[in-house]
Amino acid sequence: MIPRRKHNVSSGSLPAPDDKHASNDYILSDGTNCEGWRTALRRRFNRKTLNKRLPVTAWLPQYNMEKAVGDLIAGITVGLTVIPQSLAYSNIAGLPPQYGLYGSFLGCFVYIVLGGCRAVPAGPTAIASLLTWQIANGVIEKAILLTFLAGLVELLMGVLGLGFLINFVSGPVSSGFTSAVALMIATSQVKDLFAITVTGNTFLQQWISVFRNIHTATLWDPVLGFACIGLLLLMRKIGMIKLGTKSEDGPNTRQKAFNKCMWLLGTCRNAIVVVVGGVLGYWFVSTHGASPVRLMGAIPSGVPVPQLPPFSYVRGDNTTVDFLDMVSELGSGILVIPLIVLLEDIAICKAFSDGGTIDATQEMIALGVANIANSFMQAYPGGGSLARSVVCNGSGVKTTFNGLYTGLMVILALQFFTQYFEFIPKAVLAAVIISAIIFMVEYNVIKPMWRAKKLDLIPGVGTFVLCLTLPLELGILTGVVVNIIFILYHAARPKFSVEMLKSASGVEYLMVTPDRCLMFPSVDYVRRLVTKFASGSSVPVVLECTHIYSADYTAAKSIEQLTADFHARRQPLYFYNVKPSVCSIFEAVAKPEHFVVFYEDEELDRLLAEDERLQPRKTPAAEP
Amino acid sequence: MIPRRKHNVSSGSLPAPDDKHASNDYILSDGTNCEGWRTALRRRFNRKTLNKRLPVTAWLPQYNMEKAVGDLIAGITVGLTVIPQSLAYSNIAGLPPQYGLYGSFLGCFVYIVLGGCRAVPAGPTAIASLLTWQIANGVIEKAILLTFLAGLVELLMGVLGLGFLINFVSGPVSSGFTSAVALMIATSQVKDLFAITVTGNTFLQQWISVFRNIHTATLWDPVLGFACIGLLLLMRKIGMIKLGTKSEDGPNTRQKAFNKCMWLLGTCRNAIVVVVGGVLGYWFVSTHGASPVRLMGAIPSGVPVPQLPPFSYVRGDNTTVDFLDMVSELGSGILVIPLIVLLEDIAICKAFSDGGTIDATQEMIALGVANIANSFMQAYPGGGSLARSVVCNGSGVKTTFNGLYTGLMVILALQFFTQYFEFIPKAVLAAVIISAIIFMVEYNVIKPMWRAKKLDLIPGVGTFVLCLTLPLELGILTGVVVNIIFILYHAARPKFSVEMLKSASGVEYLMVTPDRCLMFPSVDYVRRLVTKFASGSSVPVVLECTHIYSADYTAAKSIEQLTADFHARRQPLYFYNVKPSVCSIFEAVAKPEHFVVFYEDEELDRLLAEDERLQPRKTPAAEP
Repeated sequence: MIPRRKHNVSSGSLPAPDDKHASNDYILSDGTNCEGWRTALRRRFNRKTLNKRLPVTAWLPQYNMEKAVGDLIAGITVGLTVIPQSLAYSNIAGLPPQYGLYGSFLGCFVYIVLGGCRAVPAGPTAIASLLTWQIANGVIEKAILLTFLAGLVELLMGVLGLGFLINFVSGPVSSGFTSAVALMIATSQVKDLFAITVTGNTFLQQWISVFRNIHTATLWDPVLGFACIGLLLLMRKIGMIKLGTKSEDGPNTRQKAFNKCMWLLGTCRNAIVVVVGGVLGYWFVSTHGASPVRLMGAIPSGVPVPQLPPFSYVRGDNTTVDFLDMVSELGSGILVIPLIVLLEDIAICKAFSDGGTIDATQEMIALGVANIANSFMQAYPGGGSLARSVVCNGSGVKTTFNGLYTGLMVILALQFFTQYFEFIPKAVLAAVIISAIIFMVEYNVIKPMWRAKKLDLIPGVGTFVLCLTLPLELGILTGVVVNIIFILYHAARPKFSVEMLKSASGVEYLMVTPDRCLMFPSVDYVRRLVTKFASGSSVPVVLECTHIYSADYTAAKSIEQLTADFHARRQPLYFYNVKPSVCSIFEAVAKPEHFVVFYEDEELDRLLAEDERLQPRKTPAAEP
Repeated sequence: MIPRRKHNVSSGSLPAPDDKHASNDYILSDGTNCEGWRTALRRRFNRKTLNKRLPVTAWLPQYNMEKAVGDLIAGITVGLTVIPQSLAYSNIAGLPPQYGLYGSFLGCFVYIVLGGCRAVPAGPTAIASLLTWQIANGVIEKAILLTFLAGLVELLMGVLGLGFLINFVSGPVSSGFTSAVALMIATSQVKDLFAITVTGNTFLQQWISVFRNIHTATLWDPVLGFACIGLLLLMRKIGMIKLGTKSEDGPNTRQKAFNKCMWLLGTCRNAIVVVVGGVLGYWFVSTHGASPVRLMGAIPSGVPVPQLPPFSYVRGDNTTVDFLDMVSELGSGILVIPLIVLLEDIAICKAFSDGGTIDATQEMIALGVANIANSFMQAYPGGGSLARSVVCNGSGVKTTFNGLYTGLMVILALQFFTQYFEFIPKAVLAAVIISAIIFMVEYNVIKPMWRAKKLDLIPGVGTFVLCLTLPLELGILTGVVVNIIFILYHAARPKFSVEMLKSASGVEYLMVTPDRCLMFPSVDYVRRLVTKFASGSSVPVVLECTHIYSADYTAAKSIEQLTADFHARRQPLYFYNVKPSVCSIFEAVAKPEHFVVFYEDEELDRLLAEDERLQPRKTPAAEP
């Protein structure tokens, strides 16, 4: 039994309880007190903060040859992934292909200095591309301004420490959202796969349109597309082959070399397929004068000249749309893009953190500055992409410095290779996207979710369905709200254990133990239940407050009413093991002669023995 | 020390822990299981349910002479309060005075049968009147339809058990709202007090208008008004006089009689002042032919003939407004009125429950049916009013039967006395409202709130200010949302206690104790902090889960990552005293060989002794 110590509130200040499991105060203050502010200020100006806010200062002094080699290999491998990905993603965003490349170098350079996670090459992502399409509808000027504003918002959120907001997106909601986005992106590529026209905005409309227009499909586009998908999935499988891992002393040198080759084949599969497709397209055009499959078409070459993001533009009907009109057209997208991009980025950082902690604030700042810089290169919004990070981590990346090589490769591609990109068949790029995106459909979380907590399937599946039927931001918002209602229900409905116990001197009493904090949504429920338990008999009631870690004014008012009710019924009510912080809240409102706290068993004995209400043993009755 | 028992999750099912303070499951299920439904069904058809749903069946069999006398006195006294109140409140609602009386009898009769709280005479209330004015803008047809729809919504909420929603209105928010409403109602009466024209919708606009038009005020209206306010406040004080209560054997017979007279004077002060005012007005008109103060004017006499509430009406510009247009004009008011009326009603029930429990569901049903019935009498929305309940309770009410006498008095007044009401000066009614309403400004909660929890002043004062500046429903909604953010912050930021302990065999370990549940908003924070505490040293870490009463899938994923991280760092991590319900959630996701749970001290010793990671005593390092 826990040692108990008596404390009658009317007698003065509380002794510090000595039982560590029950009633000690917790050491982490929430930073609202004066001391916290002073510490926070001091923290702002030391070396640790510098390393935190400029992560380059942490790893550059220890940079060596081994790390440089790791970064070089990783950077080049990622470059080979980024180039075809960027071309394909700009198609999702409804923009010309070069805009994907425009967003794939300057952001990388910024991330070297500011980024906290070595495996994140900043650039266009599938989700951000889809959101850009939904928000900017393929208007280049709006997409670029969106990059600038989203960057500003990210930076602001970082400075204001609002990164915690993404904690309110739970695992199920995040899985539902990602899965829905994956399906929508795959759907958006069907038109290129079959070379047909697809209309409609929602998932359902698009599939209806696909089945209506499928008869207009050419033969060779789907043949090439599906062949590429098959090839890409095969190469992905091949890339996972690991010889000799099952033998006792691990793979030998030959097996290791073979494994490395297979891994390279798997990693560079996108680049290989795109190059082969491009060569095929070039061969068709140069020998037959035309291609049986649709090609990407001319892409302007050269790195863009840095220029201000467009703060106005001229519409098709020759009217000028000014800055405020653009902002109102972008609407909530200015907030949604930063939050979703950060959500994806933090998920990646967590996956590759090797148990380290992740600084969400620093990530917001890094991505914010990267996006602002990108907007001067006419890029559309981007962030970290899981596909690239897997490659990056697998290539033995050491620091964020690998971004330099990736960025340089993109610049080289823009400067010298854009003329060759025009021969890449559209169906090949569609195949690249589809064969990557289908692995983002997280059907495999359903089983553990079912086993762990079936209720969590509601926000998960709900978000998935809503994201497919409503605009994405509305879908995820509804999921988050539903999940928050779970939290509120938890706060409103504590559980109780009720036991009839006997004190050392043989007096029976009822021990009622609520299992969580007393905050306003639950106080009436608690009061009602305690009254219900107690009104069945006239024995003294002990309210066990060990688990009540927090309370508020509404709770204090309710406790006051409860104690007054018990007093009127002449039924004793004692409070056991109330935490000092909670006790002071109750004391401020309740009448001291009604509110009796004790901390030790013996004290309960004394209280029960002394209580005059228990002496005549009369039945409880309301006072006249 | 709490007895601990070891349990390794990989070994199979959990033994039921025997320590009642720590890890037992709580006995009250939330009613979602099958057994709960069956019990609920059975409960639906027994005597207790009948008494609950038709409270008249509970008290009528025990009705006796003593109770009848108590109810008679209370009913008549309340009637003397209700009549002047109803005339005055309809002015707040912007409707002709008789509409207040129309809502003061049929609802009372309904409440006799269905009502659960004896001290609630259903009728017009100050808050509902102000809301009716804000929603219906003085259009009689809209106000009556609002009564009907609000009644339907109340009934529906009762049947669906949505009464718990008002738990989310905390004490501070409720106080802020009530105080703001009181000030706004007082402001609305200033025009009658000075007999001036006041324009503007918000609190500020109205006061600006008052100061602009104050020079047009007549002399006698404010003189009469302020005299009445002074008189009413004086009579209120006199009513509180209690002679002889300080003497040892209580007041003697003469003192008791005096006290009773004083109490009657205080209780009937509104009726007395209104009657005196009416006589004064009548005298002026009959002797001078006109009155120096503004009078109420003619009031149609007679009880209204029951008729359907208006489902369409003809506007001033001769266009017909149909049902759907009316509903869309009433808008959110159809939901706001029921919630606010219920909020006020439950607060009153709590104040006069004498420690009994309150059935919010039954109250919603009773008020719903009462309002639907009232809508057939052309009344505007109402509910329980604190002022009447204080009188009712003070008059020795015994059952809800007192409503019969109150209702009959209102019918008598409508039938025979309306011709005399026209001589009541408007300033007198304004004085009646103002001198009652100023006591609803709850400035006295600020001090205990400040002492109990300063943070609660934010929603309290915030709601007060917002209700004065925004439409009332927006003001209270914002207050509720701000307060819900507190709950979410609580869920997102648990506190920790961290201690370096030594096991019986002398091995040091770090004990980390979070103080509340693990739900999605907090899991990342917990993981980051545990990692931070642990990474400082290589000692084993024990996560004390006594206070973790609940978890979800996101938490389980985070625990899986945490255990995998510790495994990668070769640092042992054990879980102590995990509740079975939480344990099964974690087990569904985490790898069993990483997730080790124990319940007893000795088992920790054995775990520490057996752990091979602790044998070579090497510094923790990430695996290659």
